Amino acid sequence: MKYIAIIGYGVVGSGITAVLEANRSKISRVIGDDIEVRYILDLREFPGSPYGDRVVHDISVITGDPEVELVCETMGGSHPAYEFSVACMKAKKCVVTSNKEVVANYGDMLLECAAENGVSYLFEASVGGGIPVIRSLNTSMSQDNISRITGIVNGTTNYILTAMKNEGRDFADVLSEAQRLGYAERDPSADIDAIDAKRKIIILTALATGLLLPDDKVYAGSIRKVEVEDIRAADRLGYSLKLVASFCRDGNGMVSFAAPAFVPMTSPISSVDGVYNGIWVRSDTTGDVMYYGMGAGSLPTAGAVMADVCAALSGAAAAEYVPVFRKSSEADGIIHFRDTENSFYLRYDGTIGELEEALKAACPGFRGTVRDVSCNGSVTEVIIEKITLSELEKVTRSSLPILILQ
Amino acid sequence: MKYIAIIGYGVVGSGITAVLEANRSKISRVIGDDIEVRYILDLREFPGSPYGDRVVHDISVITGDPEVELVCETMGGSHPAYEFSVACMKAKKCVVTSNKEVVANYGDMLLECAAENGVSYLFEASVGGGIPVIRSLNTSMSQDNISRITGIVNGTTNYILTAMKNEGRDFADVLSEAQRLGYAERDPSADIDAIDAKRKIIILTALATGLLLPDDKVYAGSIRKVEVEDIRAADRLGYSLKLVASFCRDGNGMVSFAAPAFVPMTSPISSVDGVYNGIWVRSDTTGDVMYYGMGAGSLPTAGAVMADVCAALSGAAAAEYVPVFRKSSEADGIIHFRDTENSFYLRYDGTIGELEEALKAACPGFRGTVRDVSCNGSVTEVIIEKITLSELEKVTRSSLPILILQ
Repeated sequence: MKYIAIIGYGVVGSGITAVLEANRSKISRVIGDDIEVRYILDLREFPGSPYGDRVVHDISVITGDPEVELVCETMGGSHPAYEFSVACMKAKKCVVTSNKEVVANYGDMLLECAAENGVSYLFEASVGGGIPVIRSLNTSMSQDNISRITGIVNGTTNYILTAMKNEGRDFADVLSEAQRLGYAERDPSADIDAIDAKRKIIILTALATGLLLPDDKVYAGSIRKVEVEDIRAADRLGYSLKLVASFCRDGNGMVSFAAPAFVPMTSPISSVDGVYNGIWVRSDTTGDVMYYGMGAGSLPTAGAVMADVCAALSGAAAAEYVPVFRKSSEADGIIHFRDTENSFYLRYDGTIGELEEALKAACPGFRGTVRDVSCNGSVTEVIIEKITLSELEKVTRSSLPILILQ
Repeated sequence: MKYIAIIGYGVVGSGITAVLEANRSKISRVIGDDIEVRYILDLREFPGSPYGDRVVHDISVITGDPEVELVCETMGGSHPAYEFSVACMKAKKCVVTSNKEVVANYGDMLLECAAENGVSYLFEASVGGGIPVIRSLNTSMSQDNISRITGIVNGTTNYILTAMKNEGRDFADVLSEAQRLGYAERDPSADIDAIDAKRKIIILTALATGLLLPDDKVYAGSIRKVEVEDIRAADRLGYSLKLVASFCRDGNGMVSFAAPAFVPMTSPISSVDGVYNGIWVRSDTTGDVMYYGMGAGSLPTAGAVMADVCAALSGAAAAEYVPVFRKSSEADGIIHFRDTENSFYLRYDGTIGELEEALKAACPGFRGTVRDVSCNGSVTEVIIEKITLSELEKVTRSSLPILILQ
């Protein structure tokens, strides 16, 4: 018998016991032994649950039990998740997590701590819910050079943007419906201000490059100011408006960001709708691969946690290539998204001539082009090429500039 | 230094040396050692190649060299690929293959031989080219119950069907163009008669269930008789016409097949076009996941071979869950696709009344429904529900009956 503990018994944590019950025989076959949940750490009690008698409130009960081989950290947030994970690994327990915040902020130290203590630290469930993208990047693609990742990695915002498109309703209206239905949190900022997507692209970038980017090197663009008109314009011009998380590397350097963008209809991620996630990876030899599936939800995410539990307890994870993350430095050639030249769509409250004047005044260095894509006389719509977001933000009387993904 | 050999130096085999050159440093990092190709077995000589001096013509040179740890079998076909693979594993060498025919026919015996000799037999490249679907099924999803797999796994036929749709050209015309461009072989039967797709669904079914289905339990439906009218009807009725490879399991039993089918536009695989592959997997906890990418080509396929080489030589493959395939028996409840009730689209050379008479005469047991979906007075188009292909094939004066995927 292998004993595990779960710390944080919320949506994902309780999904783990559900998956364990449902798939017990297959899990035992993979691990070569049965699994039992010995402890559940939570602030609450669960008197009605069959696991109610395993609830503890003190992490030292878990770290102090030498029979517990693995801990599932599904509490979320950086603290005390980081400290608890370190304590468990120092007590020679593997740690498996669904917590993207702690991996994005402390992944380098957590992987180092795991290596020092001869245990595994695994985080498949931190990106893309049940989609097995992290193990794929880490095993199947570990020998390849990844040059680009473009993903739709936040189900809440994708649900909102899809509903705005399909029903022509505005952002605030759809957001409050999503909150009522439980698709968005009461404080929705982590999702709609792209903080969640940013954490996920930080993790994917680290898997592709080994570099864990600091928070201030990764742009997060909110979707709060996206208007139905933007979505209509995208559609008319052959794009889907999506909140994309992107990593891109070329001869000039690398950039990672999360931002609302026009995605060409020809891209496989343009049709990833609703609460689904899609992650598209380009590498030198494999070419383009896309992973698609349920990016959130209790069972899919708990299933990903369980896949990691199996990898850790079967010994497979220890034999796999273990990534090493290091904090990036100046020498790594990281460019902030604000400072990269791109194409943007926007509506301007004035004539094309006035916009060109405003651009000249605000951005003396601007050498790009302004293309008129207006569809009626009353609104000036343009695509501005070869301009940075920093420059564009100086231009007033403009709607939210929306990146056009190449 | 780790020494490997390549047997069969064609499109994939030569891709392996190209990938090795391009990604040498990443590959060494993953394996923890450098790799060198010591032998290339082929009937031909390659005097101009930098690997020309390593060409041998006798497998015993490879099996007799104890320093060779791994052999890439990229020769294709069942024989002598099977015998050579067994000989290499008996000589304690891992074998990695891109050969779907030998895995579909002899996967059970090859995996058993690997286990007996304490080596790995890996076949990521046998399905989906560079798409890492096999390792995902085998690791991330090994603890889950897979109830359905639907894939577009043959790039040649998908290219043909996509061109028929986009350009309105007929099958023979597009096929000869595909042959001219090198997308289809001179003898195209393995692709267009769905033999290749059938082998791939046999492999995917074995990964999902452990059962290696014999050839005669898996239906392969050719696309030779697909007409432009079928593709137009699919489009009008909200479907894409695709050659799908499918495994499905429910309370009644399991069925695997490859056949042209109407795929609902709402399915993520309906938009997999051209030479791309898409494989959609439904499981109890993870829900729906789709893998999408280049299903063929020298570098993507060789990249998948190299991922297996890395897994084998790093020791990861030995620690992963190793699948066991067994030949299926009567007790496994396998139903032939011909005998499962489904819905089909067809055009009938006669009136609806005549078709109903013909159905009554040919299939006395028929209790389904006939739905008129004609779009003009001159052609009778119907969707027949709750009928088997065996029954439908008795009805003459009909176009190719095309499955409607649920």
